[in-house]
Amino acid sequence: MERNVYPFSAIVGQEDMKLALLLNLINPALGGVLIRGEKGTAKSTAVRGLCDLTEEIDVVKGCAFHCQPGRPPLCADCEGNEHPETVRYRRRVVELPISATEDRVVGSLNIEEAIRKGKKEFEPGILAEANGNILYVDEINLLDDHLVDILLDSAAMGVNTVEREGVSYSHPSRFVLVGTMNPEEGDLRPQLLDRFGLVVEIRGEQDLALRSELIRRRLAFERDPEDFANQWRPEQAALREQIRRAQESLDQIVIPEEMYLDAAKLGVALGVDGHRADITLLKTAQTLAAFWGDGAVARNHIVKAARMVLPHRMRKLPFDNTDGLPSDLEALLDA
Amino acid sequence: MERNVYPFSAIVGQEDMKLALLLNLINPALGGVLIRGEKGTAKSTAVRGLCDLTEEIDVVKGCAFHCQPGRPPLCADCEGNEHPETVRYRRRVVELPISATEDRVVGSLNIEEAIRKGKKEFEPGILAEANGNILYVDEINLLDDHLVDILLDSAAMGVNTVEREGVSYSHPSRFVLVGTMNPEEGDLRPQLLDRFGLVVEIRGEQDLALRSELIRRRLAFERDPEDFANQWRPEQAALREQIRRAQESLDQIVIPEEMYLDAAKLGVALGVDGHRADITLLKTAQTLAAFWGDGAVARNHIVKAARMVLPHRMRKLPFDNTDGLPSDLEALLDA
Amino acid sequence: MERNVYPFSAIVGQEDMKLALLLNLINPALGGVLIRGEKGTAKSTAVRGLCDLTEEIDVVKGCAFHCQPGRPPLCADCEGNEHPETVRYRRRVVELPISATEDRVVGSLNIEEAIRKGKKEFEPGILAEANGNILYVDEINLLDDHLVDILLDSAAMGVNTVEREGVSYSHPSRFVLVGTMNPEEGDLRPQLLDRFGLVVEIRGEQDLALRSELIRRRLAFERDPEDFANQWRPEQAALREQIRRAQESLDQIVIPEEMYLDAAKLGVALGVDGHRADITLLKTAQTLAAFWGDGAVARNHIVKAARMVLPHRMRKLPFDNTDGLPSDLEALLDA
Amino acid sequence: MERNVYPFSAIVGQEDMKLALLLNLINPALGGVLIRGEKGTAKSTAVRGLCDLTEEIDVVKGCAFHCQPGRPPLCADCEGNEHPETVRYRRRVVELPISATEDRVVGSLNIEEAIRKGKKEFEPGILAEANGNILYVDEINLLDDHLVDILLDSAAMGVNTVEREGVSYSHPSRFVLVGTMNPEEGDLRPQLLDRFGLVVEIRGEQDLALRSELIRRRLAFERDPEDFANQWRPEQAALREQIRRAQESLDQIVIPEEMYLDAAKLGVALGVDGHRADITLLKTAQTLAAFWGDGAVARNHIVKAARMVLPHRMRKLPFDNTDGLPSDLEALLDA
Amino acid sequence: MERNVYPFSAIVGQEDMKLALLLNLINPALGGVLIRGEKGTAKSTAVRGLCDLTEEIDVVKGCAFHCQPGRPPLCADCEGNEHPETVRYRRRVVELPISATEDRVVGSLNIEEAIRKGKKEFEPGILAEANGNILYVDEINLLDDHLVDILLDSAAMGVNTVEREGVSYSHPSRFVLVGTMNPEEGDLRPQLLDRFGLVVEIRGEQDLALRSELIRRRLAFERDPEDFANQWRPEQAALREQIRRAQESLDQIVIPEEMYLDAAKLGVALGVDGHRADITLLKTAQTLAAFWGDGAVARNHIVKAARMVLPHRMRKLPFDNTDGLPSDLEALLDA
Amino acid sequence: MERNVYPFSAIVGQEDMKLALLLNLINPALGGVLIRGEKGTAKSTAVRGLCDLTEEIDVVKGCAFHCQPGRPPLCADCEGNEHPETVRYRRRVVELPISATEDRVVGSLNIEEAIRKGKKEFEPGILAEANGNILYVDEINLLDDHLVDILLDSAAMGVNTVEREGVSYSHPSRFVLVGTMNPEEGDLRPQLLDRFGLVVEIRGEQDLALRSELIRRRLAFERDPEDFANQWRPEQAALREQIRRAQESLDQIVIPEEMYLDAAKLGVALGVDGHRADITLLKTAQTLAAFWGDGAVARNHIVKAARMVLPHRMRKLPFDNTDGLPSDLEALLDA
Repeated sequence: MERNVYPFSAIVGQEDMKLALLLNLINPALGGVLIRGEKGTAKSTAVRGLCDLTEEIDVVKGCAFHCQPGRPPLCADCEGNEHPETVRYRRRVVELPISATEDRVVGSLNIEEAIRKGKKEFEPGILAEANGNILYVDEINLLDDHLVDILLDSAAMGVNTVEREGVSYSHPSRFVLVGTMNPEEGDLRPQLLDRFGLVVEIRGEQDLALRSELIRRRLAFERDPEDFANQWRPEQAALREQIRRAQESLDQIVIPEEMYLDAAKLGVALGVDGHRADITLLKTAQTLAAFWGDGAVARNHIVKAARMVLPHRMRKLPFDNTDGLPSDLEALLDA
Repeated sequence: MERNVYPFSAIVGQEDMKLALLLNLINPALGGVLIRGEKGTAKSTAVRGLCDLTEEIDVVKGCAFHCQPGRPPLCADCEGNEHPETVRYRRRVVELPISATEDRVVGSLNIEEAIRKGKKEFEPGILAEANGNILYVDEINLLDDHLVDILLDSAAMGVNTVEREGVSYSHPSRFVLVGTMNPEEGDLRPQLLDRFGLVVEIRGEQDLALRSELIRRRLAFERDPEDFANQWRPEQAALREQIRRAQESLDQIVIPEEMYLDAAKLGVALGVDGHRADITLLKTAQTLAAFWGDGAVARNHIVKAARMVLPHRMRKLPFDNTDGLPSDLEALLDA
Repeated sequence: MERNVYPFSAIVGQEDMKLALLLNLINPALGGVLIRGEKGTAKSTAVRGLCDLTEEIDVVKGCAFHCQPGRPPLCADCEGNEHPETVRYRRRVVELPISATEDRVVGSLNIEEAIRKGKKEFEPGILAEANGNILYVDEINLLDDHLVDILLDSAAMGVNTVEREGVSYSHPSRFVLVGTMNPEEGDLRPQLLDRFGLVVEIRGEQDLALRSELIRRRLAFERDPEDFANQWRPEQAALREQIRRAQESLDQIVIPEEMYLDAAKLGVALGVDGHRADITLLKTAQTLAAFWGDGAVARNHIVKAARMVLPHRMRKLPFDNTDGLPSDLEALLDA
Repeated sequence: MERNVYPFSAIVGQEDMKLALLLNLINPALGGVLIRGEKGTAKSTAVRGLCDLTEEIDVVKGCAFHCQPGRPPLCADCEGNEHPETVRYRRRVVELPISATEDRVVGSLNIEEAIRKGKKEFEPGILAEANGNILYVDEINLLDDHLVDILLDSAAMGVNTVEREGVSYSHPSRFVLVGTMNPEEGDLRPQLLDRFGLVVEIRGEQDLALRSELIRRRLAFERDPEDFANQWRPEQAALREQIRRAQESLDQIVIPEEMYLDAAKLGVALGVDGHRADITLLKTAQTLAAFWGDGAVARNHIVKAARMVLPHRMRKLPFDNTDGLPSDLEALLDA
Repeated sequence: MERNVYPFSAIVGQEDMKLALLLNLINPALGGVLIRGEKGTAKSTAVRGLCDLTEEIDVVKGCAFHCQPGRPPLCADCEGNEHPETVRYRRRVVELPISATEDRVVGSLNIEEAIRKGKKEFEPGILAEANGNILYVDEINLLDDHLVDILLDSAAMGVNTVEREGVSYSHPSRFVLVGTMNPEEGDLRPQLLDRFGLVVEIRGEQDLALRSELIRRRLAFERDPEDFANQWRPEQAALREQIRRAQESLDQIVIPEEMYLDAAKLGVALGVDGHRADITLLKTAQTLAAFWGDGAVARNHIVKAARMVLPHRMRKLPFDNTDGLPSDLEALLDA
Repeated sequence: MERNVYPFSAIVGQEDMKLALLLNLINPALGGVLIRGEKGTAKSTAVRGLCDLTEEIDVVKGCAFHCQPGRPPLCADCEGNEHPETVRYRRRVVELPISATEDRVVGSLNIEEAIRKGKKEFEPGILAEANGNILYVDEINLLDDHLVDILLDSAAMGVNTVEREGVSYSHPSRFVLVGTMNPEEGDLRPQLLDRFGLVVEIRGEQDLALRSELIRRRLAFERDPEDFANQWRPEQAALREQIRRAQESLDQIVIPEEMYLDAAKLGVALGVDGHRADITLLKTAQTLAAFWGDGAVARNHIVKAARMVLPHRMRKLPFDNTDGLPSDLEALLDA
């Protein structure tokens, strides 16, 4: 009962959203994407398409966390297993419904069993399933704050730890976190907003030609999903290759000294709280350089990254621009 | 203890409601109908009458989802069953009471049994019963948002998936969703409103002749339901035939290129959020063409469909018209 | 520990309330009475007196729903029982306390028993007890909306259906529904108000002679209930005979064509929502004709019935009259 | 661990409260007393003193309701017991704490036992204990409305009926109901207020001589309760005798015809809701005549009773008098 | 794990609080002390110090209520025990946390055991532990009103009675009740406030010399508690002796007739509700006379006591003085 | 799955926060630190770094409270154990999640076991784990007030006492309490605020050079945590030595007489409530003298300590300074 996936490269418009998703796929350490915007703008379609761009991986057979041998952190069982049998694994989008309970999200520890058998009996939850995958939370602003907190902690540390009555259990939980929200239905607390790496705003396409192209592609896909997929196969292959290269080169991208000062300058000039903004700004710029095939971070990377990293962390919006950022960041940096 | 059904074709007035219901019966992919309006306007009578227009079908004997052999999606049991025994099945209106719990709606998985017997024990819920039928939710605006969300997901995908503690079970759940609401008692969230394919407004008949005819027919029906049904037999038969032909021709209806542009133009001009509106507009126009016996979508289909598809998706009502739409859509398209 | 019943015909004043109760006793299809008004106005006394006017009936011995052989709907057990043993049954007033739970009202299905024994085990509730009787809900405006809804559904259909986990059980539940409320303590939702057939307003007697007569009768009754009952025996007998005749003639009352138009005219002119008002208006007029011994519905029946059927269904009160109706309905109809 | 009781006749001032309590002791059919007023005004002392004025009675040995042979209603067991063994019983003040649950108040039926043994197993509650006694509810305005309703029903009917799942159990529950409340902490709903027979207002004594006498008596009582009781023995004996005579003569007190008209006149002139006020007014006047040793109800009884019966039932207070009553009721009656 | 107690006589300032505590220790019938005031003002230190001033007593060995033979009321077991074995008992401060449940406070009755064994099984609660001790409730204004009520009832009667399903159990519960509250966090209901015998207001010391002495003593105590205690041994001994003599002489203190009038005069002039104020005023004056070694109550005792007894019982504060009392009470009495 | 710890001495800026943490590490009797300020300011990093500065200790093997032999208070088991076997123990940061229940925080007593076995069965909670460690509560202002109260009680007394149904269990619970809060999300009640020893405000670094240094260090640490730690080893060692010396000298620091007066003067002049402020001020000044290597408390210690001790205890802020303190405290003291 599988659904056909609409190809990521066939999505019309929404360039910011697509870029933010791709950067997090390349570098999950960026800390997730929050997509804010109108209803009916294909957010879910984009996330499923993003997942479809990933390649199959080898995971330990039977492991509830689908650990990848040689890519720590591994779960307690896999860590001690030197020659594990592996199977091919298709990454997936794990959805977290806003009605999920904490137990369902983090998993549950059977304390009585733990005591009786002297062995931790852990019932894996959504964060176990999410390991190595994309965790998608639609309407995350309607989720209980406490659960958002747990998600962001796991996203930041790559580990989920459950504690019950003095017994604790940890397992790897590295995922690309994608949340969506309609700001008309209430916002996230600033405390939580700050912990999302990137935030992008989306709205419906206003260009008539693009908009009718969008309808045409959608109806074509609904009419015959397989035929549609065949048409977009070359674009998909090219995008997959660009992602692969960016992942390989990421660690080699140089950060020149003046770029640190640029990041600090933006943080102070725009009145962002704390320092997470500055650090994420540089890491995003670095990933962008890798995606664009550049060898070092430059000001154009900083400026592009700033649009996704800074607006949601600015205490007061100093200019009347849509996203709260001054339109000419370069000028600001030269000041 | 069966109730007699008032014939659909004997309903006086309420043309929009009747058309929206018929279009969804012909093409369930339109995504359901939401009827907004006064109390006491025979909404329930119309839905029962609509169901009575459907024909009996062959379903797998003993299947809790009354799967139709050869019409996927099928449930897990029926999929593997190549030569199933079938029985005739009378489609029905499945009501979802606003006090229903989530378990009652989606069904429940017996986890312990699943683990002990290694077999999924699924207790079917209302969405199982709804498969192949009409799902009717009176006063849907009083239903918990979370349940409305589940209904709309199933309506969109034709599948109901239950997940409990890592075990999941899916079964087909294709139905025509009909909701009603009295807007005086609170509205649905825009997020949910957008996901209903069509929305129609109804009010009591104001024409005296029609209104007294309405009372006369109703008292006649209450006095002798069987005699009343006999009088309306020819009209019912004609309507059934029109529906059957529309269903057969639906896939052959052509969409000329300029119609895509028209749909996009309306979406932008009227400021609807996202793109679901445009897509549904074209699909509704296509179904309307089939119902009216036309071979291709034309502007008159677009204009008629727009009245049922667009008003509830417009952010701000730009004109002072009853349904928020400008009165001359043709002029708007020619502009 | 039985209480003596104050004779219905000895009630001083409150003519509207008494008429509405009698009409519903004659024709339970009118849909119940809602009595709105001051505290301490003998509403409960009138309902008990009404019940005392009914005659004993023959019911199936041991049947929890006291089915009457030959008067469908019957319960599942009685339907298959061709020659049931019967007993004489004294109709009673069944009270529904506003603290009653849903289980207590509709009854409960023992699912485990149903599965184990393959037989439906149904624990009858208040709606079972109500079948064939008068169901009295004091302060119905304080009852949970959901339960009011259930009551009105049963009142409208004459059947109570319980569904639990896919198992359902139906039994007859035909009753005269009488609710009371003090409008100072909050009103019913318009949606629910519309579904009560008749609504009457009551207030304390203002005529001094009638009022002291009222006290005298009440103290006389409290002093010696049996002696008081003997004094009123002739009036009670005459009223019982009038009721019996009205029930017999009800189906023969003619509705002239122009009366349909009158009903529609009132509905439109007074701005009532939907069509239930018009239909109930004609049915009440028909019952009134039967009670008054007339052979056909005439305008005086319509005008009298309108006072009990229309005011609570008018969206806005167009005149400054007590009950919101214009004082001269005849003039309105002639206009 | 018994407490010594302060003699009723030694209470300084508060004449209205004392009279209302005594009248209810003589004629429990008056329907209870509600004492409204300041904190610290010896309400509890008065109620305990009232109880101390009653005489020991003969009750059926072992009966949970302490039925009095020959004074119906009796409980089911005592009714069938023709020659019951009796014991002497000291009447008491039964307190109903505002935190009491419904089960605790009405008692509980053991349904399983009822079914298994075919015998009703009833666990008596506070209303069982209250039978034949004084039921005292301090701060009754803080009690759940539903429980107040139950209390007033029992007080009115002298019977408590428990219904659970179709099984019902009734037992006698005749008591003098006394409630207190501080109106600064919220009032009772008018619906409930109306059902209290008498309502009196109290406030601290303002006369210096009386007030210091009050302190002196109280300290004397605290110093040596037994000695204090001895001093007041003669007054207590006289009061007991007056009560006994009033109880005996109550049924012989004549109500002249013009008194009915007076009662109705007051009800209409003062705008009280409903008719319970008029009826209670006459019954209170009758009891007052008995207490004062008069043979027939006269206007002075009506006027005195009106002060305790009418103010809390007047919809709007027409004069600026403390209790809302016009100061010259006689003039009003002569008008 | 015992804490060292700071000597009561070493507390700097806060004379009203110290006097009110000492008077209640001498005469627990005064009804407790409520300390209202700023955070951080050593309220808890004073209460522990007060307890340390009491002497060891002889209690019945093994008695959960530490009954004192010869000092009634005694518990049911001790009452029948003529020659009980005793042990020495150190009085303590029993704390009642504001999160305590009713069961925890009053104790719980095991009904099943009671029925099966025919013996009352009582699980003692905080009120059992409090018997003979000081019951301390910090932030009593945050305690559930219902529990405050229970505490004040026990404090007034010296008995705690638990009733469950018709079974009741009583035990002695005589204690000095001390509550504290910060009025900035909400006040007690007047109804409850009135039932505290004495109320004192405290605030931080404003005199610089006293304030630095306070710090010096506190640091000295923290540095070496035992050495500090030795320094204050003589003052502590003197205070203990003064308390002992006051307790002995209390019953012999004479109340001259004009003092009753003075108390009543103050009550009326200051508009206090009810009469509890007057009575407590005289009893406090009497205890003060005993503490100061005087033989009869005089006006200076009344005036001093009034400051602790009246302000919290005045409905409206007639003067602008800090505690709401006119500054010259003597003048008021002479008026 | 351990995380690498960022060295405390490598933290850029935030001097107040660092000093307050270090002073509490040296003298846990100061009563904890509350850090108020912007999100994203490395509060958690500082706390983990602080813990890393502590040295390993010897604790009793198997003791749930990791008691240190010879350093009372000890738990009941360790107190009676004269020659316990010990193990080396690495102090840790114990986190208290704001969703923790009271049972989880204080531990739970198994009452049934206690009664059956005659032995207290205690399930240790977070306060057990916290003994000897740092207890960290992020967003403490979102924690239930009752739990904050429990934490502060334990922090003040060094003991956690659990009482359930008359059974009580105590164990040592000495810890350095560190709470954080974002004042934009609601403040703590003044009552609770007063009980935190020190409060510091933090905000993001505004100096560009420091800010870019901060980013550089953070990215360097993320790139290679071990290499980063090696670079900071000398600074860390020096800081550890300074802490060790301060702890040793603390008890020998002299408090000159005029310093008591200075503390009292500040308390009165700035209108702080109660006396806890004055006492904590002197103790903090004493610890500061020890940390700075001075032998006696001097005015510069008082002035520095005042900035962390007084602002959150001032009722009204008399000056417009950031922290509510007048800028020239020295002048105030000389006045």
